[in-house]
Amino acid sequence: MKVPRTTAHALPTTAPGSRVRLQGWVHRRRELATVSFLVLRDRTGLAQAVFAPGTPLPPEETPVEVVGTATANAQAPGGVEVTSPVVTALGDPADTPAVELWRPRLDTGLPTLLDHAATTWRHPRQRAVWELAAASLHGFRSTLDASGFTEVHTPKLVESATESGANVFEVDYFGRPAYLAQSPQFYKQVLVGVFERVYEVGPVFRAEPHDTVRHLAQYVSLDVELGFVEDHVEVIACLRDTVAGMVEAVHERAGRAVELLGLDVPVVPEVVPTLHFREALALIGAPEDEPDLAPEHERALGAWGREEHGSDFVVVHGYPTAHRAFYSHPDPENPRWSRSFDLLFRGLELVSGAQRLHRYDDYVAALAARGYPLAPYASYVEAFRRGIPPHGGFAIGLERWVARLTGAANIREVTLFPRDLHRLAP
Amino acid sequence: MKVPRTTAHALPTTAPGSRVRLQGWVHRRRELATVSFLVLRDRTGLAQAVFAPGTPLPPEETPVEVVGTATANAQAPGGVEVTSPVVTALGDPADTPAVELWRPRLDTGLPTLLDHAATTWRHPRQRAVWELAAASLHGFRSTLDASGFTEVHTPKLVESATESGANVFEVDYFGRPAYLAQSPQFYKQVLVGVFERVYEVGPVFRAEPHDTVRHLAQYVSLDVELGFVEDHVEVIACLRDTVAGMVEAVHERAGRAVELLGLDVPVVPEVVPTLHFREALALIGAPEDEPDLAPEHERALGAWGREEHGSDFVVVHGYPTAHRAFYSHPDPENPRWSRSFDLLFRGLELVSGAQRLHRYDDYVAALAARGYPLAPYASYVEAFRRGIPPHGGFAIGLERWVARLTGAANIREVTLFPRDLHRLAP
Repeated sequence: MKVPRTTAHALPTTAPGSRVRLQGWVHRRRELATVSFLVLRDRTGLAQAVFAPGTPLPPEETPVEVVGTATANAQAPGGVEVTSPVVTALGDPADTPAVELWRPRLDTGLPTLLDHAATTWRHPRQRAVWELAAASLHGFRSTLDASGFTEVHTPKLVESATESGANVFEVDYFGRPAYLAQSPQFYKQVLVGVFERVYEVGPVFRAEPHDTVRHLAQYVSLDVELGFVEDHVEVIACLRDTVAGMVEAVHERAGRAVELLGLDVPVVPEVVPTLHFREALALIGAPEDEPDLAPEHERALGAWGREEHGSDFVVVHGYPTAHRAFYSHPDPENPRWSRSFDLLFRGLELVSGAQRLHRYDDYVAALAARGYPLAPYASYVEAFRRGIPPHGGFAIGLERWVARLTGAANIREVTLFPRDLHRLAP
Repeated sequence: MKVPRTTAHALPTTAPGSRVRLQGWVHRRRELATVSFLVLRDRTGLAQAVFAPGTPLPPEETPVEVVGTATANAQAPGGVEVTSPVVTALGDPADTPAVELWRPRLDTGLPTLLDHAATTWRHPRQRAVWELAAASLHGFRSTLDASGFTEVHTPKLVESATESGANVFEVDYFGRPAYLAQSPQFYKQVLVGVFERVYEVGPVFRAEPHDTVRHLAQYVSLDVELGFVEDHVEVIACLRDTVAGMVEAVHERAGRAVELLGLDVPVVPEVVPTLHFREALALIGAPEDEPDLAPEHERALGAWGREEHGSDFVVVHGYPTAHRAFYSHPDPENPRWSRSFDLLFRGLELVSGAQRLHRYDDYVAALAARGYPLAPYASYVEAFRRGIPPHGGFAIGLERWVARLTGAANIREVTLFPRDLHRLAP
């Protein structure tokens, strides 16, 4: 009978002398005068097998099976290696990879990293980056599942642009034009009318015409919307708990990735330091008629949160109504300001959200105030004649979150197969 | 201080005489000579409040808050109702809905159901249908998470069609043509090279030119791929466990939906009755040179599974290689047959899967055998020079699964906002 498979991670806990079977890739061959090593990589880590010198070993990246004896050796990864091994290739010998994956760091330029993504993601440090993303998704969902939210999936092909007419991809939809959804905004709002609390994890599309280190043509949006709120403060509390759940899941499910990358994972305070937009401007000495926070303002506020409150997170709320999406709810006491907010993480905007308008007449007035025609928004706005309670929500960009967490200089580094102005493959 | 919110579901467990606050929609008003009732609907169910006759009550579907006293009444839903209530509208009075949501069943034609989806999904029986979908997604992920799978998210904008040139939507991608992904097939295969085991839940797009009750232009695909398999039997075992996990989650997380809809939820046998394609044809008396199973064959096999094994599920494997996707792995003992399979659920194909080819030369030969040019597949095929182990996978269509579970006649009935040849809104 076949020996059951042992993972690299489990090898050190195997009884010495027992027969083991590992499967993975040839991570590295080292052929010395008196001995040869094969370092095997599987989804859990690395393991070492020791061969007589001159034993023919398959080239790096070939998938292999190694059967042998678990033997204690303080020099081996985890203190146990495989001796008397027999190695069998499980596929053709692999071509030489474009980068040397066995080196501790992938020292390569961004174009090589992205052109050879199917290979470069195999590097343990690169794979660890995605493990943070996957863990974060788990934490996002489990936090919201525990609070009565319902997962939804909404159309990515829509009749008209939801956010604005610009930056939208046109699709030939059976001979007529359709557009790729820039967000599930409309759908999550009307679904509050059905489920009260909804979330969606899915792709959104922005025909971003500029090459920047922070924008992608497709990204994973973590969308949340909840009904029966008093105001945006409840929405901010939900956001705080959601991000805390993501951080907790990173520790619980991607602890090895955190360790390998040497990450400083943030702590989400019970109450995130929060400033009104006016207070934020005053604090950083910016003119009080600024329409929005500039990047240097966000950095200054990030430094303030860090220094004054020991927090990597700062919430700014009450942005000027005229400069936020038309569906943002104004502050009833002073409609110049809105019940919108941003969550800054380490001095950069990570999340935008708001309480939304929920009355039909308010939508009509908000569109008119901006000089937008009603027609393209008619079916959106009509939904608010059918009983939508006060509600609000937010959207977290998965890749932006992971980029900030890892300190990546370019968001493309943390995206499995990024799409941008120039890149449509792999 | 404000009384905390009570849900309709929790009302019956509230101490009689205590003050309660409910939020939801006016599900129904009943104005009798001596008393008026307001039935409130929230995400958890229905609750009743009792008013003096003639009290003005907001129209159906208006979001409201009801504050009053919890009082035992055997006639009320759950045995407790709200007396001495004060009702406050939380939005404008709702327009009269297109359908009467308070009736036990939504007796309406499909066009009305779909045109007014934002409203019709509020019906408790309709909402229950999506609760089955959301629970199934949870079960899918939790089963795979527990087996070392990594969640991935892959591009939906691609350079060339993956599955076949037909039925693909073209996108204007910054002035050049791109296509909406028909499946994450290529990406999940190359990501086996990174993570060994991956899954993705996301939209896939098919420009299906026919109006059928089983096809959508966009649907949610539950994709799985796993490496280091011996053959397709391991892939089938993974599929069995995944579907069993989905069924378990339906019971655990959507029990009220199951009860409301009176569903007969299937039991997934430890070992699903399995037939080779040849055996299947012989069993149902079909000619042995049939290229595929026709719908009547699938129905007959479903009846066989039910009658002979008490199973709602049947696996057929070994379909003719020439009639499956070119990346299907042939049976090494007789390459006329492939290591592909379908899972039939109640006599209808629910899932397709296979062990895939994993060697470069095999891909080149498979394309040549079908007379396909290599060029459009070059970057796909090239990936198999870089060390991809033996692997296989499958894809479950979420909407198809829910349609079979509920016995829906048309897949559109179980899709939140379906897309098809004619429908691009809401």
